[in-house]
Amino acid sequence: MIVALCGGVGGAKLTFGLYRTLPPDTLCVVVNTADDLAFCGLHISPDLDTVTYTLAGVAGGEAGWGLEGDTHGALDMLGRYGVPVWFRVGDRDLATHLYRTDRLRRGDTLTAVTASLAAALGVRARILPMTDQRVATRLLVGDDWIDFQEYFVHRLHSVPVEAIRYDGIEDACPAPSVLPDIQRAEAVVIVNSNPLLSIMPILSVNGVRDALAATGAPRVAVSPMVASGAVSGPAGDLMRLVELPPTAMGVAALYAGLIDGMIIDARDEEQIPAIRGLGVEVLCTDALMRDERDRVRLATEVLRFAHSLR
Amino acid sequence: MIVALCGGVGGAKLTFGLYRTLPPDTLCVVVNTADDLAFCGLHISPDLDTVTYTLAGVAGGEAGWGLEGDTHGALDMLGRYGVPVWFRVGDRDLATHLYRTDRLRRGDTLTAVTASLAAALGVRARILPMTDQRVATRLLVGDDWIDFQEYFVHRLHSVPVEAIRYDGIEDACPAPSVLPDIQRAEAVVIVNSNPLLSIMPILSVNGVRDALAATGAPRVAVSPMVASGAVSGPAGDLMRLVELPPTAMGVAALYAGLIDGMIIDARDEEQIPAIRGLGVEVLCTDALMRDERDRVRLATEVLRFAHSLR
Repeated sequence: MIVALCGGVGGAKLTFGLYRTLPPDTLCVVVNTADDLAFCGLHISPDLDTVTYTLAGVAGGEAGWGLEGDTHGALDMLGRYGVPVWFRVGDRDLATHLYRTDRLRRGDTLTAVTASLAAALGVRARILPMTDQRVATRLLVGDDWIDFQEYFVHRLHSVPVEAIRYDGIEDACPAPSVLPDIQRAEAVVIVNSNPLLSIMPILSVNGVRDALAATGAPRVAVSPMVASGAVSGPAGDLMRLVELPPTAMGVAALYAGLIDGMIIDARDEEQIPAIRGLGVEVLCTDALMRDERDRVRLATEVLRFAHSLR
Repeated sequence: MIVALCGGVGGAKLTFGLYRTLPPDTLCVVVNTADDLAFCGLHISPDLDTVTYTLAGVAGGEAGWGLEGDTHGALDMLGRYGVPVWFRVGDRDLATHLYRTDRLRRGDTLTAVTASLAAALGVRARILPMTDQRVATRLLVGDDWIDFQEYFVHRLHSVPVEAIRYDGIEDACPAPSVLPDIQRAEAVVIVNSNPLLSIMPILSVNGVRDALAATGAPRVAVSPMVASGAVSGPAGDLMRLVELPPTAMGVAALYAGLIDGMIIDARDEEQIPAIRGLGVEVLCTDALMRDERDRVRLATEVLRFAHSLR
């Protein structure tokens, strides 16, 4: 069993590569749920859905997430009813949220619902929410703490963030099989997701950091920073909130003590000595994923590198 | 103000005729809600939606109800998730149910939500649920009491019904403006909806029968039975549950004491003496509505007839 820690669209690409590379039923993906939101009373888990859809091969809506070729009839109608519709939920995507919300209201856990959705879409990986409890990323913009999707989707992550917090994280227990899966993993891969928005919430769930620190399995991280900046999104900009540079080295420092190896892009070769100085081994390669072949190639290199650290 | 009592698709046609015939803001439609159902945690009010969509000119899905030209992406996806999808909810239609459910959960009344939906779709009639409380039509089929939609949609109303009841009706209060609107109405029209499935629930809400009996305004009913049978649906077959014939005369007897006049089809001319024997005046005309022109024509005749009974 390989365990991947993952957020949304960017990280899901490498997770897809891992899924394609590994034998069926040997990948466990622990997914950030601090981006979850309520929309019209529905429980939406964007990162869980992105991972599930991506592994199922049905991802890719007009906004870069959601389901490929989805329609937007429901959203258009909600707009007529005066509902703010900047969160672009497609019709088939809506079914996922409806199904999830209905089962959660009946008392099922997010873990159980996520497993059902993945099974229905034919995904042979274990996709786990980081927790079955409610955690919500909030960002301080000006004098206001705003919700993650308000920041990320509505304001297009273009406003300066003063601080970040994960509401509910102190009381959040890991979903039931997260810690056992980390303990028995052959390797742990922190994929190239946004360090502060996607990975830190997972690492901050009670017990996860300790389990990662304690496992004897090799732990590697793939840098989302290439050539001193994030490949996409606000990951780089947010690094200054933890007083670290927006570089592979900065990410290595953020994960220090939890990783044995770091995969960085060839353009960041000059950072190798500094990262090694943290006691972290480095694989320097082409870390950009332009297409499906890149995803599988990078995943193969990541797994080979992790095994070499045993 | 003209008050119409109405159920779903069939009655909505005449209600549309009334709406087109009357000046704006002078029609009040009291609608059956005993067909309401829960689907994936959503509150669906089929008759309220059919009336609203019909008056807004957007009615007409593949199943004869819902929204014209609607898609079914969400339903198809729910099917993949193992949800029974015999209740064919379209994507844009789903938005109505989502919006309603979300507002009801926030504490708004069905009356308030219905008014918002109608206003958003540009409908200038007052559409009222018969009650803001929960009433559910149940039918005895064999040894089982089944839900209305199970009977009507899933089993295509093709199974023999032994008895009918309206769960919750004893405690149901009329929605706030139902009784005042009946009291100040210039005329009350019971449209050609299914007597036992659509009209009797409305009449059985506490106070409605008394308000109809007490009003000084003319009260007329349009027979849904033409040539000894219902124009569509199981209305005729169900009449035997109240030991009445499936005819205009049977419907007149069911509404006896609550109506001053009955509109029947020319083919049922021979029933005029019997209906008059109940103390009910009769207008004999072409009671079938094949197209929009028929709806307006019949509505005009109904209103003229009602005014003649003042």
